[in-house]
Amino acid sequence: MQELPLAQAFKLIEPGPVTLVTTAVGRRKNIMTISWTMVMDFTPKLAFVTGPWNHSFHALVETRECVIAIPSVDMSKTVVGIGTCSGADTAKFRKFGLTPTKAKVVKAPLIAECIANIECRVIDHVKRHDLFVLEGVRAWMDPDAGKRRTFHAVGDGTFVADGRRFSHRALMAGKIPPRV
Amino acid sequence: MQELPLAQAFKLIEPGPVTLVTTAVGRRKNIMTISWTMVMDFTPKLAFVTGPWNHSFHALVETRECVIAIPSVDMSKTVVGIGTCSGADTAKFRKFGLTPTKAKVVKAPLIAECIANIECRVIDHVKRHDLFVLEGVRAWMDPDAGKRRTFHAVGDGTFVADGRRFSHRALMAGKIPPRV
Repeated sequence: MQELPLAQAFKLIEPGPVTLVTTAVGRRKNIMTISWTMVMDFTPKLAFVTGPWNHSFHALVETRECVIAIPSVDMSKTVVGIGTCSGADTAKFRKFGLTPTKAKVVKAPLIAECIANIECRVIDHVKRHDLFVLEGVRAWMDPDAGKRRTFHAVGDGTFVADGRRFSHRALMAGKIPPRV
Repeated sequence: MQELPLAQAFKLIEPGPVTLVTTAVGRRKNIMTISWTMVMDFTPKLAFVTGPWNHSFHALVETRECVIAIPSVDMSKTVVGIGTCSGADTAKFRKFGLTPTKAKVVKAPLIAECIANIECRVIDHVKRHDLFVLEGVRAWMDPDAGKRRTFHAVGDGTFVADGRRFSHRALMAGKIPPRV
């Protein structure tokens, strides 16, 4: 993984891909699948929704840290597998053959096989909405990610892979923040 | 537009497409482009981020209603145009040749040219995060939407159209809510 400038990290979440979120309590690492995510600011400030029904919730509340990892579409079965078992009784990194890599700032691990990883600190927990608000503190990208595609959950068990990319940068010049 | 069961409406937002959000104050209608959106629950409970820097913010605060419309990729230039001018000095429906259609429950209009529309009520405004939390109250879908594709903003002026669709419904059976 190559370091990605923090000013660019919101671009990993804005398109709305399925994500994997890692946590660590002591040596006990876990992963959950989350597609209810959102960008809240370019800084980057990010958010996702989860609650006590997810094993990782307790780790988030206790450690106030996580990593948001962006899987590629060839990992879709793994991502669904991770989302349909619980860290309460499953060592998910081992079960799904994923490689936890040491992050720089947080104790939660990066996922080596993913396209990108964002180390995050929990800066707010809006309990009435099960909302975690996060600040990205470091970001990492597979330097060969150019060929890899993310994918999006529809919510009914179907998914959509990224298709054609196109640019309207010229039309949007005044709206694009610096260093993006 | 054909009515879509509310239990299905979250599926329009979960994949993370670029959206258009309409508001109406009296006869004054407006549209803004938003890609910082999120599903918060299947009911559907939805969220997006906007603040006083957007003209529509004041309409949202005053009326506590809006429509989230899902544009197709062939509307991408229109969507960027809407996002780069202000309702303060532009009648956007007229300027962009879009057709406002009467909604059933809210005063904000549907956009006839879009793939789908969700009528929403604002149920919370979390001011410290510029977050609007919405309850979808009616949903509408272009009955011929099958061929139309949504698209996703990266945040740097580039976009990604939907590509290949695939299903892992069998793997996820226990996780899919009823009527979805």
